[in-house]
Amino acid sequence: MLAEIKGLNEECGIFGIWGHEEAAQVTYYGLHSLQHRGQEGAGIVVAHHGALKGHKGLGLVTEVFSNGELQSLYGMAAIGHVRYSTAGGGGYENVQPLLFRSQNGSLALAHNGNLVNATELKLQLEQQGSIFQTTSDTEVLAHLIRRSHAPTLKEQIKEALTYLEGAFAFLLLTETELYIALDPYGFRPLSIGRLGNAYVVASETCAFDVVGATYEREVEPGELIIINSEGIHSERFAPKKTRSICSMEYIYFARPDSNVDGINIHTARKNLGKRLALEAPVEADIVTGVPDSSISVAIGYAEATGIPYELGLIKNRYVGRTFIQPSQSLREQGVKMKLSPVRGVVAGKRVVMVDDSIVRGTTSKRIVTMLREAGATEVHVRISSPPITHPCFYGIDTSTKEELIAATRTVEEIRNIIGADSLAFLSHEGLLEAIGRPDNSPLRGQCLACFTGAYPTNTCQERTQLVIKQ
Amino acid sequence: MLAEIKGLNEECGIFGIWGHEEAAQVTYYGLHSLQHRGQEGAGIVVAHHGALKGHKGLGLVTEVFSNGELQSLYGMAAIGHVRYSTAGGGGYENVQPLLFRSQNGSLALAHNGNLVNATELKLQLEQQGSIFQTTSDTEVLAHLIRRSHAPTLKEQIKEALTYLEGAFAFLLLTETELYIALDPYGFRPLSIGRLGNAYVVASETCAFDVVGATYEREVEPGELIIINSEGIHSERFAPKKTRSICSMEYIYFARPDSNVDGINIHTARKNLGKRLALEAPVEADIVTGVPDSSISVAIGYAEATGIPYELGLIKNRYVGRTFIQPSQSLREQGVKMKLSPVRGVVAGKRVVMVDDSIVRGTTSKRIVTMLREAGATEVHVRISSPPITHPCFYGIDTSTKEELIAATRTVEEIRNIIGADSLAFLSHEGLLEAIGRPDNSPLRGQCLACFTGAYPTNTCQERTQLVIKQ
Amino acid sequence: MLAEIKGLNEECGIFGIWGHEEAAQVTYYGLHSLQHRGQEGAGIVVAHHGALKGHKGLGLVTEVFSNGELQSLYGMAAIGHVRYSTAGGGGYENVQPLLFRSQNGSLALAHNGNLVNATELKLQLEQQGSIFQTTSDTEVLAHLIRRSHAPTLKEQIKEALTYLEGAFAFLLLTETELYIALDPYGFRPLSIGRLGNAYVVASETCAFDVVGATYEREVEPGELIIINSEGIHSERFAPKKTRSICSMEYIYFARPDSNVDGINIHTARKNLGKRLALEAPVEADIVTGVPDSSISVAIGYAEATGIPYELGLIKNRYVGRTFIQPSQSLREQGVKMKLSPVRGVVAGKRVVMVDDSIVRGTTSKRIVTMLREAGATEVHVRISSPPITHPCFYGIDTSTKEELIAATRTVEEIRNIIGADSLAFLSHEGLLEAIGRPDNSPLRGQCLACFTGAYPTNTCQERTQLVIKQ
Amino acid sequence: MLAEIKGLNEECGIFGIWGHEEAAQVTYYGLHSLQHRGQEGAGIVVAHHGALKGHKGLGLVTEVFSNGELQSLYGMAAIGHVRYSTAGGGGYENVQPLLFRSQNGSLALAHNGNLVNATELKLQLEQQGSIFQTTSDTEVLAHLIRRSHAPTLKEQIKEALTYLEGAFAFLLLTETELYIALDPYGFRPLSIGRLGNAYVVASETCAFDVVGATYEREVEPGELIIINSEGIHSERFAPKKTRSICSMEYIYFARPDSNVDGINIHTARKNLGKRLALEAPVEADIVTGVPDSSISVAIGYAEATGIPYELGLIKNRYVGRTFIQPSQSLREQGVKMKLSPVRGVVAGKRVVMVDDSIVRGTTSKRIVTMLREAGATEVHVRISSPPITHPCFYGIDTSTKEELIAATRTVEEIRNIIGADSLAFLSHEGLLEAIGRPDNSPLRGQCLACFTGAYPTNTCQERTQLVIKQ
Repeated sequence: MLAEIKGLNEECGIFGIWGHEEAAQVTYYGLHSLQHRGQEGAGIVVAHHGALKGHKGLGLVTEVFSNGELQSLYGMAAIGHVRYSTAGGGGYENVQPLLFRSQNGSLALAHNGNLVNATELKLQLEQQGSIFQTTSDTEVLAHLIRRSHAPTLKEQIKEALTYLEGAFAFLLLTETELYIALDPYGFRPLSIGRLGNAYVVASETCAFDVVGATYEREVEPGELIIINSEGIHSERFAPKKTRSICSMEYIYFARPDSNVDGINIHTARKNLGKRLALEAPVEADIVTGVPDSSISVAIGYAEATGIPYELGLIKNRYVGRTFIQPSQSLREQGVKMKLSPVRGVVAGKRVVMVDDSIVRGTTSKRIVTMLREAGATEVHVRISSPPITHPCFYGIDTSTKEELIAATRTVEEIRNIIGADSLAFLSHEGLLEAIGRPDNSPLRGQCLACFTGAYPTNTCQERTQLVIKQ
Repeated sequence: MLAEIKGLNEECGIFGIWGHEEAAQVTYYGLHSLQHRGQEGAGIVVAHHGALKGHKGLGLVTEVFSNGELQSLYGMAAIGHVRYSTAGGGGYENVQPLLFRSQNGSLALAHNGNLVNATELKLQLEQQGSIFQTTSDTEVLAHLIRRSHAPTLKEQIKEALTYLEGAFAFLLLTETELYIALDPYGFRPLSIGRLGNAYVVASETCAFDVVGATYEREVEPGELIIINSEGIHSERFAPKKTRSICSMEYIYFARPDSNVDGINIHTARKNLGKRLALEAPVEADIVTGVPDSSISVAIGYAEATGIPYELGLIKNRYVGRTFIQPSQSLREQGVKMKLSPVRGVVAGKRVVMVDDSIVRGTTSKRIVTMLREAGATEVHVRISSPPITHPCFYGIDTSTKEELIAATRTVEEIRNIIGADSLAFLSHEGLLEAIGRPDNSPLRGQCLACFTGAYPTNTCQERTQLVIKQ
Repeated sequence: MLAEIKGLNEECGIFGIWGHEEAAQVTYYGLHSLQHRGQEGAGIVVAHHGALKGHKGLGLVTEVFSNGELQSLYGMAAIGHVRYSTAGGGGYENVQPLLFRSQNGSLALAHNGNLVNATELKLQLEQQGSIFQTTSDTEVLAHLIRRSHAPTLKEQIKEALTYLEGAFAFLLLTETELYIALDPYGFRPLSIGRLGNAYVVASETCAFDVVGATYEREVEPGELIIINSEGIHSERFAPKKTRSICSMEYIYFARPDSNVDGINIHTARKNLGKRLALEAPVEADIVTGVPDSSISVAIGYAEATGIPYELGLIKNRYVGRTFIQPSQSLREQGVKMKLSPVRGVVAGKRVVMVDDSIVRGTTSKRIVTMLREAGATEVHVRISSPPITHPCFYGIDTSTKEELIAATRTVEEIRNIIGADSLAFLSHEGLLEAIGRPDNSPLRGQCLACFTGAYPTNTCQERTQLVIKQ
Repeated sequence: MLAEIKGLNEECGIFGIWGHEEAAQVTYYGLHSLQHRGQEGAGIVVAHHGALKGHKGLGLVTEVFSNGELQSLYGMAAIGHVRYSTAGGGGYENVQPLLFRSQNGSLALAHNGNLVNATELKLQLEQQGSIFQTTSDTEVLAHLIRRSHAPTLKEQIKEALTYLEGAFAFLLLTETELYIALDPYGFRPLSIGRLGNAYVVASETCAFDVVGATYEREVEPGELIIINSEGIHSERFAPKKTRSICSMEYIYFARPDSNVDGINIHTARKNLGKRLALEAPVEADIVTGVPDSSISVAIGYAEATGIPYELGLIKNRYVGRTFIQPSQSLREQGVKMKLSPVRGVVAGKRVVMVDDSIVRGTTSKRIVTMLREAGATEVHVRISSPPITHPCFYGIDTSTKEELIAATRTVEEIRNIIGADSLAFLSHEGLLEAIGRPDNSPLRGQCLACFTGAYPTNTCQERTQLVIKQ
């Protein structure tokens, strides 16, 4: 079961706009700014004169829309999606937005998150004769809507949403309306903004800055927003639960220039670094961060300790699906794929290497080794999150418990495995306080499940089955 | 004349390898690490069993070699090139390496730099019946070699090189030899390294780190290096002049993890920032750098002043030739192309904005405006180089004198134009001392022509014409 | 209703193979020989180790499989499809085989024909909650199968087939079986052959010749053939009706080297030409045929009359989707798109122009005009089929009744419109006798509906609605 | 020497236009109709506002211009080229028109033919310092022009042309003029026509018919035509020799709807068939031709003998560079690549198989075998040309003498090798009389070198060397 759920796992980015003459173009730039949330595929669907039209493909946004496809996507409303690059899965048909046509009208879906009961729902639907075109959990929502006997599309959507468990941020576009929904726990960020008279919605606020929009507010957990020619309208499809926004968005996923719930990510990360300096100081010559997500943390750590921040590691910016992986023999000869140490900076130095997290430990071990080979005399690893001890069921691809190095090992054992001179993780309290969400008591306001195992929702192992009404 | 020279202007990156079983593959990774030096085109030529074979194309390295082309480029020696994206010029045929076949053997050329007398030489050669296939100044060398009556290819190359004036770093590959040449002033960086038993050569040392090679030494100005089955051999084609390495390599062009003449670029830039802090301190709340080249400078400035470094500006990483530029109307609505301000960081703050240089002033003005619109209460601009007052004839595309804002205006006038609360440039002495080259007296060791007008070589306006011997 | 049915209309080619090591490759060559039946799109699905895998795309077979896609399609069984180029419709998702995955196993469908009750069935299925991914009538079968409560897949297929009305030749591939079905009237040709130990099935026997297979027999109307690891097995899903094979297959659709029900197409067409000579002789200097389908007819006409056959018209073989249509101004200047007259052959001659049919009359008029402009002194048009007076509902895209020139006009009126000196159509009896099917009495053995209006099945206007069992 | 000459060998098609608003578009359709003369590559160059601009590529015309490239080629004059698919040679740079830019103006070259002294001229030019960019013999002309010291371009071209030996039909476009030249023997066809006020020139007249142009006259051997804003003007660069137009153009190369020197190709081929029937009748049941070139011959043979013409062989129309060749195992299983026998037509019949020529004999043997396997009881081969006993040096890729089956064998030996029941070739006289050129005595008016060894010009083995004036 877990393996299959993992196959569905994905972190993604979504963007929508209503009421703009160049809706597809704005969505293109919005998606481009969300590219860090998914590089496997991208797509845009527009509504125009009572019809939906879309284009999608495998690759980066710039690759997918490189042959003039945008020009034919005119219309005043659009939704778009960038999809995370999962190892073996995927393929063209899973790229979103998914577009479903019928004689009752069309609907397009863009989804960020992970439904923990997708497999069960899909099984039930197939037993009732439904045919799925994708292996994406997103398609389940479309079938639930079409199966609903509720009188209006809005009521059908609300009924369908109640069957879903897990993390979801949905954009749903029809010929005449844009629907926005966030799961009752609000695992994923989703914000509303304005661009002139148009409404925009995005996974991260950096998309607003890039397209020149102004931030309005967060979508609330359990909220269903409807935008149409009569304006914007908010309803609830579920009672509000305590928000459980994913800590990993702050720690490594979101772009540093985004705000999540009003907190700037770069600032949050600098604070994580400062707190880490407080919790785990060390005597050293330089501080360096693992790019890109740990640069801000490292600067915070440096600022708090007075140890100079230096560029000890550099990222090789290979992008797109066309980068050719080095052969085994070249790798053994030292060809670097993602990170290179900066010999001129680290040679002869005691280095504090700041990173955001340790999952399997293999990357950390590689970087420590790399730094030593480049001449670092000591390598002290500082991690801006607590040990990850439990898998995530809400859309972050953190592997199974067996693969998590911290699930069964002490910090000292991990230090020994990765070969560091010292190793420290941030505490749970440190994490919450440094980020400083409005209500920062444990398990309230922020999901810590991967650090604690305290999952906000049922998980697939334990939950009771919902039966779809026929 | 100037316009035409400008058309030929280009900053580029070159990489070569001799004696490696996967020569083309290593060159691919080397070029990839030099991608920042040129995004318009890329190419690789290999020597194999007495024949040269190549592939080149418009676009990024990963785009050009995206369909398995590397697999057919086997051979023990290779040279590669990435080409700078000039506005209107270029086209496929100008992408390098240029490959010239004849019944006397083939030769491939990769060139970084700019020949100031290319137009004159080309005119003479055409009058003598030569046909040029490109508009690149690089091709001139091939014709001069073929016209030479010297008895050996090496002597032909040496004779041909004496006709050239300006900045050039050349790699020349034949079926059996690799030639490396650097102009007598050494305007451009060019380093030699080892990868196991193989020799490598690259515009920047970051390429060595990425492919796992170790740095050996710089190529010397006026040196001609020949690598063949008998090993490596060094000669001179011109007497050694005082080195005039381009200051801009340190200031903004080279990658922070490269060393130029033994000096790490990140470290040099941090030093520029510290010196700038000393020369032009200011009371402010945060320091921010214009990405990517000014991040190190900003960190140095922050470290020296104690003002916190923050991420106030973020770069939108659109890459490749397929990015769609926003329409005029979208730009006016605020769609950002390259840089976005981070509102959550700069709002309500007094900001020190650190940048590497001011050419026309339009970019600086745009950034200052952007920061103010994002809520900065004050914007203090600090530039880590002196005012650029003269055009460059050696390969940096700095425009004509008329377009250089600092050519005819005082610092106060520029400050007023760009709308900053204060503006300061680094002094000439500050630049030299912060970089700290071995011999750092003015005009010795480092080219400052764009700041001073003291050009190391003749320039096209004044030089006497060389007549090609027939 | 009619417009929508028209949108679904398509003539296509299908090919399948079971038990061959290079199943996809053989299918590629088979489809290539069926390319004349559809140029809009092509696809192949293979079964391998309990999984279906496919590739499809818009364009010709050679275009769709131009990048090594065949190499990854290994397996011992395959089905393929070429799709007819309909004017505005289509798109990638309609290209077949359609592939449906579910937790109960996958199935792939390739279809040649047209279901007259597709729209009604689709409406019912959507009202029951089904989501369609294509606008193709083929998908209806998949939903009917999935909706069936029958215990085995074979029974589900048989139940589903009973809902269908119209013309259909289906190939259905699962991980372990190949199903072949032909509608009870047998409108479309479908033959079975052997290639070594493998079974092959194709729309036309020319595919057998190209792949080196030997013809075995026709699939019978109402027959369901199952091929699996236990061999080949035949059942019936419907009682055998009088065969109503489409006359147009003989007249213009099939390839001249194919046999349909044992009758060679080239020979049949020569016989049509001879009969036409008998029914409508004329005094003239040369006979010429409109390529490609009327060449054989023209040769037969020439042979029977003794008038020399000459090449008076030539086809411009533009192929593929990339041919650029001439602008209006170029067309007015005389740029030919499809046919050119051969001036050197027709100038000064009395020409018999033989064609297979007249639909709207515009093409005939254009050709007559063309021949006159090239110098023909007389143009006598001879048509190797009776006047088309009724639309086809079984897959030939013959337009609505209003557009059929012969629906409301006499032969003399048509002659006048197309500008011919004389015009003659073949008689109904002539058609049947010249083709010489085993049982050639009117309306038995051969569909003449477009010439007579006597449709073998109910048509959409009149039929009673089948209700899908839930 | 021969091998190298062979590498340069190519039959090609050229098209040019002067004075038309859609010059590139017309050229596209013209080239499309000449596609049978070369499938490896295609290109078009236009002159517009004092500049030449072009696009070329590997593949068919429709493939090369499939992405809107035509739209950017505006201008009132254009030349185009289709290139023959040589086995291993070629590559992008050899695709024509070749475009040469210089400070004295640009020139574009399109060439059909083969220069017998290209290798020598190239050697001399390289020794004088010229650099060649292609391995095409066409480039020699450009260098000779640029080397000339004559005062005007026209004089330079005339001087350059005098150095050339062999077969050549050249189109040369500059910013302001179109030059047309045919070698003194007129080996290749080249015709002039009018399209409204515009002038057109093409390898075959079928291009005129397709674009709506009217034929004016042949270009004369040794003629140089200049078209510019002052009109059309004719000069001679060499005295008129007896025309030696290639017999193979009539026999198999030209399109049946073209006229060469006023003789329609289809008609000529029918006459070849009739003459063949006279010279070599046989008792048989059917006549069939090897498509495409021998269809007309077979019809003529059938008409003269009264044996019915039938479609016994069919060509599989795979086109473009993307067709995938069958694997060896599939070929052995009988997958046909180019030709299939029509079993329904030939089984049980005595077949006359008409073909245009026998080069190596392997193809003939394969077809005879194929017909027998399809059930033919007798196969009588009739060839519409005399035995080919000598290689061609003028552009037809007929291999070396060693490979020509008829160079060293009697007709009976050949019959035995190919396995025919009988075999006959057309006589020399029969060839000349059936084609019926104005003056049809041997060696006058028509090149028969490949049948007789009587080469009109010096050949590379024997000729004296021309020294290029410096």
